[in-house]
Amino acid sequence: MPAGEPQSRPWSQEDHDFMAAALRLAERGLGRVAPNPSVGCIVVREGRVVGRGWTQPGGRPHGETEALRRAGAAAEGATVYVSLEPCAHWGKTPPCTDALVAARIARAVVSCEDPDPRVSGRGLQQLRDAGIVVEVGLMAEEACELNRGFFLRLTEKRPLVTLKLATSLDGRIATPGGESKWITGQAARARAHLLRASHDAVLVGAGTALADDPQLDVRLPGLASCSPVRVLLDGRLQTPATHRLIAQADRQPTWLFTRADAPQERIGALRDAGVDVVTLEVGAEQQQIDLQAVTEALAERGITRLLVEGGGQVAAAFLRAGLVDRLAWFQAGKLIGGDGLPAVAGFGRDRLADVPGFDLERLERLGPDLLECWRRAG
Amino acid sequence: MPAGEPQSRPWSQEDHDFMAAALRLAERGLGRVAPNPSVGCIVVREGRVVGRGWTQPGGRPHGETEALRRAGAAAEGATVYVSLEPCAHWGKTPPCTDALVAARIARAVVSCEDPDPRVSGRGLQQLRDAGIVVEVGLMAEEACELNRGFFLRLTEKRPLVTLKLATSLDGRIATPGGESKWITGQAARARAHLLRASHDAVLVGAGTALADDPQLDVRLPGLASCSPVRVLLDGRLQTPATHRLIAQADRQPTWLFTRADAPQERIGALRDAGVDVVTLEVGAEQQQIDLQAVTEALAERGITRLLVEGGGQVAAAFLRAGLVDRLAWFQAGKLIGGDGLPAVAGFGRDRLADVPGFDLERLERLGPDLLECWRRAG
Repeated sequence: MPAGEPQSRPWSQEDHDFMAAALRLAERGLGRVAPNPSVGCIVVREGRVVGRGWTQPGGRPHGETEALRRAGAAAEGATVYVSLEPCAHWGKTPPCTDALVAARIARAVVSCEDPDPRVSGRGLQQLRDAGIVVEVGLMAEEACELNRGFFLRLTEKRPLVTLKLATSLDGRIATPGGESKWITGQAARARAHLLRASHDAVLVGAGTALADDPQLDVRLPGLASCSPVRVLLDGRLQTPATHRLIAQADRQPTWLFTRADAPQERIGALRDAGVDVVTLEVGAEQQQIDLQAVTEALAERGITRLLVEGGGQVAAAFLRAGLVDRLAWFQAGKLIGGDGLPAVAGFGRDRLADVPGFDLERLERLGPDLLECWRRAG
Repeated sequence: MPAGEPQSRPWSQEDHDFMAAALRLAERGLGRVAPNPSVGCIVVREGRVVGRGWTQPGGRPHGETEALRRAGAAAEGATVYVSLEPCAHWGKTPPCTDALVAARIARAVVSCEDPDPRVSGRGLQQLRDAGIVVEVGLMAEEACELNRGFFLRLTEKRPLVTLKLATSLDGRIATPGGESKWITGQAARARAHLLRASHDAVLVGAGTALADDPQLDVRLPGLASCSPVRVLLDGRLQTPATHRLIAQADRQPTWLFTRADAPQERIGALRDAGVDVVTLEVGAEQQQIDLQAVTEALAERGITRLLVEGGGQVAAAFLRAGLVDRLAWFQAGKLIGGDGLPAVAGFGRDRLADVPGFDLERLERLGPDLLECWRRAG
């Protein structure tokens, strides 16, 4: 059967369970493998798992190689479940298809095809040519969602953008008196750090940098090495050199986006402090940095998953630009009232038909708080 | 064992299941039995349900009487599960305890005691005196929550107050252009009507009356007779006589609360239209009607469950007064932005320690929307 042909297979419950497990393994790589996809792989022989693997930090080894290495000779005659089409080209490592053929597996169940033109369909064909039974499409939608950032970077030249908010029930991030710490509780804040760990970069605007002096690192035991690249939008270079995003740029990369007409001596000082300054042309009539250009620059630099952490003006700008793919909304059971600071500033949509819409993906209770995950509608 | 003594009983799973069913029956009466409690009752003999009953509209017959009537002779030797202590006094009907004794039941499992001083503990004692095994406290917390409105009217001289909101994710009820219909979808709106049906009265402020000209009835097939009393706060008598709350006051009761110094001729005209006008003294320095006085007046009139439907100023005023017991928050997966109209206006709490807090009680998915039910914390 040629690759890409619509298939309606009677996959067994066992097939589903093993593929679901492979997807969970793939999730482990998110935030650590960019610009590569994160792939999970499970090798099963006579109903028993004989090897498991997922894409390792930095993107190599690939999940299939890892799983085959652990399976060893037991891979012969086995079924391999893999969450993305195995690569068929020589990159920094030999093609995974070669490894699967060499291991003499009998059957490969693949979740979805790789849109990378160097792979697409060819990986599957190579396996079939070697006499391996290949089945494609099991849990394809889940697998595509999992690597959405990798796919978007290839197809739209930008990362997946998740807007993270932590608010009262009425969507406020500070009281009228300016108090903002903490609206959500400890479990929600730990979960937010885990969210950072699964992203390649975390972005804030100058307002948040000034007000909160955030570190934007992952402060969970054992996960400090998963801290993402820090991205600061600072068109007017307002952030003082004493603030942590700049003062600690040697510890965790900070990329600062500013206007091309920003003072050169300030840019020089920031670069001396270890900040990676990216300048963007901004038209005379424009007030703000073009977010389309920012996300394209991030994609060029290999970022596949971007977490936008605020503040309200930055959130509004991303929404206005149509660049928000997902919402991770932490809600505390508190009401601050209309004189509090809104999490999302105004962005001028007068008609309900024009406001951004989202579909509910998942809910998590975190102690007294709630995490709502929404996905761009349609 | 004397009534009220702390008990730790090894209730069986069967006991739990029957009591849970009795509570579900009791729920059916909510919004239709005030100022009475709503009671569910199940009669079980040899493991089979032989009778079911719940408090009927208007508060009579009581749930126990209903269940015994259906059980007939099969009640002899049976176990009766009842969600509230059976009444022991002659009201408009004979005491339920007499009926239970006459039916020769063997055992009564009671969820919680009745705080009504005419009943409290005496109902249980009368059953014990007749040789019936009486066990108290199974699912007591759930039972108390269910009749919280009935209890609050007795103990705090006010109804249970539920604030209902239907907003975007960022807590907005209209776009900057003023568009508000509809933010939530059809399933959520039908659920909101069901919410009205379970309340004795629904309250809005003059702003909402003016802007939306609401009917505040229950427009669900078969449930039109469950439409609650409509309560309008209109200190300055701004609502035109052509608006439905007033023009249709003959169809569904409308109680209008206004200032005692409101123009007498206007009050007279409203009364001629069938509106029940209640005047409250408002001090010269006060801008607004005192909500404590409003809720006390409602309790005096027999209201046990009040649904506050807005708008933003009324919601803020109820929160400021500390009168919100529960939130029923319908959320649509939309983002309107900070220039939209907030569901809760400002109410001047500068410190996070002072803002009202709520515990998550229940989540319901309603098509694309979400209903979050929160309960006053602590």
